[in-house]
Amino acid sequence: MASVTVRSSSHDYEVLIGKGLRHNLVEFISSGYTSILVITDSTVKDHYLQDVKESLSEATPVFTAVVPAGESSKSMVRYEELLDSCVDVKLDRKSLIIALGGGMIGDLAGFVASTYLRGIDYIQMPTTILAHDSSVGGKVAINHPKGKNLIGSFYHPVKVIYDIETMETLPESEIRSGYGEVIKHAFLSDEDWAHRLLKGKLSELSVKQLESDIMKGIQVKASIVEKDEREAGIRKYLNLGHTLAHAIEAELGYGEITHGEAVAVGLLFMMKLSNELKGAQLPIQAYKEWLDDNNYPVSVLTRIRPDRMLERMMLDKKTLRRKINFVLLHELSDPYVVEIEEAQLLEQMSLLINEVSGE
Amino acid sequence: MASVTVRSSSHDYEVLIGKGLRHNLVEFISSGYTSILVITDSTVKDHYLQDVKESLSEATPVFTAVVPAGESSKSMVRYEELLDSCVDVKLDRKSLIIALGGGMIGDLAGFVASTYLRGIDYIQMPTTILAHDSSVGGKVAINHPKGKNLIGSFYHPVKVIYDIETMETLPESEIRSGYGEVIKHAFLSDEDWAHRLLKGKLSELSVKQLESDIMKGIQVKASIVEKDEREAGIRKYLNLGHTLAHAIEAELGYGEITHGEAVAVGLLFMMKLSNELKGAQLPIQAYKEWLDDNNYPVSVLTRIRPDRMLERMMLDKKTLRRKINFVLLHELSDPYVVEIEEAQLLEQMSLLINEVSGE
Ligand SMILES: NC(=O)c1ccc[n+]([C@@H]2O[C@H](COP(=O)([O-])OP(=O)(O)OC[C@H]3O[C@@H](n4cnc5c(N)ncnc54)[C@H](O)[C@@H]3O)[C@@H](O)[C@H]2O)c1
Ligand SMILES: NC(=O)c1ccc[n+]([C@@H]2O[C@H](COP(=O)([O-])OP(=O)(O)OC[C@H]3O[C@@H](n4cnc5c(N)ncnc54)[C@H](O)[C@@H]3O)[C@@H](O)[C@H]2O)c1
Ligand SMILES: [Zn+2]
Ligand SMILES: [Zn+2]
Repeated sequence: MASVTVRSSSHDYEVLIGKGLRHNLVEFISSGYTSILVITDSTVKDHYLQDVKESLSEATPVFTAVVPAGESSKSMVRYEELLDSCVDVKLDRKSLIIALGGGMIGDLAGFVASTYLRGIDYIQMPTTILAHDSSVGGKVAINHPKGKNLIGSFYHPVKVIYDIETMETLPESEIRSGYGEVIKHAFLSDEDWAHRLLKGKLSELSVKQLESDIMKGIQVKASIVEKDEREAGIRKYLNLGHTLAHAIEAELGYGEITHGEAVAVGLLFMMKLSNELKGAQLPIQAYKEWLDDNNYPVSVLTRIRPDRMLERMMLDKKTLRRKINFVLLHELSDPYVVEIEEAQLLEQMSLLINEVSGE
Repeated sequence: MASVTVRSSSHDYEVLIGKGLRHNLVEFISSGYTSILVITDSTVKDHYLQDVKESLSEATPVFTAVVPAGESSKSMVRYEELLDSCVDVKLDRKSLIIALGGGMIGDLAGFVASTYLRGIDYIQMPTTILAHDSSVGGKVAINHPKGKNLIGSFYHPVKVIYDIETMETLPESEIRSGYGEVIKHAFLSDEDWAHRLLKGKLSELSVKQLESDIMKGIQVKASIVEKDEREAGIRKYLNLGHTLAHAIEAELGYGEITHGEAVAVGLLFMMKLSNELKGAQLPIQAYKEWLDDNNYPVSVLTRIRPDRMLERMMLDKKTLRRKINFVLLHELSDPYVVEIEEAQLLEQMSLLINEVSGE
């Protein structure tokens, strides 16, 4: 078992990463809670809820609440239902919420925990690779019909318990999605790690490799968030690849492509801009091959129109000027923020689309 | 104009108290906001919304949202509506919410501000005397059908702007309500102030007196909350008089009697317990006269049944043992928490009811 300590403005918390942790929860969870509510989704429930319930202390009453799997559960309706559950099972100030699932459940259950009785303890038990990103950093939220994550708080878990074994049931697309954010963290922090990732195939991933990647990803995220919890400065670097990714997700409609897959495509555009406009020498060819080898849906680029992408990006950034701030890389592990003009963005996007179509 | 600085875990903020402040808001509000949403209730709107809008900078777009006056607006439905308004008028991270109203608006608008985009700035502009209590301390919340303030956050305003002049339109019952909390703060902190209050009549209150009482009340609240923001210890003292008050409010149904009036009656019971059971010599006779002179609804005591009150108090405290923690006073300005047994509570309550009926 590996462990990372994360410092936050309110308290420090441990991230435990290891195989089969869900079978030993009594060891990791304080016995002082009056009751526990496990919140999970309908898919994760079938796989892991029983294990989790069995491994919690018999001395503490355990309740469960299940929402339908999928991003659409990160909604006001589910939020209200879950608060009703908290009231119904009489959670008090000394109760605990466990968020068992991917980033959707982490964000939703975390927001419930942050506002029930003005905030009670919660533990993240991530069951997706992508959730290595969402389980650390304290951002919790639900979506509004008009935009993602518009309603939420900054509220840190008291612990993150990451059972690597639960990744075994993940469908391929969710592994790809998770590794979109893993490789982002590598690009942001560590050249050697990035090159190692680019040499590997996701279908041949070992548990050891996965555990190490998740731990390194969490360390990168934690160290940035510790320095800038409220995104006043360097936390922006975590948006590497995300400006285009958000535009693609919005354009295709959520669910068409996973978040991490969109990020992986966004990273390709980031490399293009860094190299062509700013003279960087990022390994764009190797990255393209890695995307292809692992079946990332790079072809979505042929389905989008540069001008529409641009409008979406400007909407997203609420900018009135015809320029957009991008996170780019001088070289691997050396990010910076720079303003890029509309015309250049359009040109580079068209070039990239042509390259991708031509292949 | 008087001013008090409040320290919180996230930032320090100023409470400005003075006559006519609503006419000079440009002076007190930073000009850096991209837009402002004023949230108020239907009654306060008619009195003061126009003044407030006219005195905000013309350079910043100002929007308004109005909810029906009354405690029932502190609900999930209104919360959602207000979030929709935030989205509709496109508030961004650099927008400001102004909570213009009593404690209901402060709690509701503060909760909206705490969760929109994971928290944006808000300013409290209290328009009731009671709100001297609610506008400081960072507790924001809405009610759940099953209980008051079950959903909320700790989230401090960036400023409190208290225009004493707005108190002039308050109905008598709201002045009484506010002074229930004022006298609580006096009992908790300052013998001289308490005696001065007991000698005065609310109907003869001068603006100068009011300003001074509000400022002193805020200082007491702030100094306790600064030492114990999350109610782990001494913040409990602020519940002086509240254990019975909550039971009375719940028993009579909310709206039958104002919160501060219920607190004033609760303080009488607190004095009774302190004197009879613990040998204190609190000025219970003078306090009874003050309550009578100012038309506090002490007679509600004749409408309640001690055994039902007890059940409610135990429910409220979620206690299984037949004992309840009370905040009592050794003497004025010397609070402590003590456990009192059921039988004693029943006896003292019956005695008090008899005294009150006999008068
Ligand atoms: N808070 C943050 O900082 C942050 C950061 C990044 C992403 N997010 C959020 O995270 C969410 C995306 O997270 P996600 O990709 O984990 O989505 P998710 O939680 O919806 O999980 C993806 C799918 O995988 C299923 N699943 C989860 N664990 C499984 C397992 N072990 N085996 C089989 N199936 C499993 C789920 O039921 C779901 O259908 C988004 O809502 C995003 O906004 C938040
Ligand atoms: N957050 C805290 O720490 C805290 C502390 C105490 C109370 N509270 C909350 O405060 C609320 C009670 O506050 P309140 O008593 O101010 O109630 P309120 O805001 O409902 O105001 C009482 C009534 O007075 C009217 N009113 C307000 N200002 C007026 C003015 N200047 N002139 C004429 N009418 C005016 C209102 O429209 C309302 O009808 C409760 O919801 C309570 O839970 C919160
Ligand atoms: Zn992401
Ligand atoms: Zn009160």
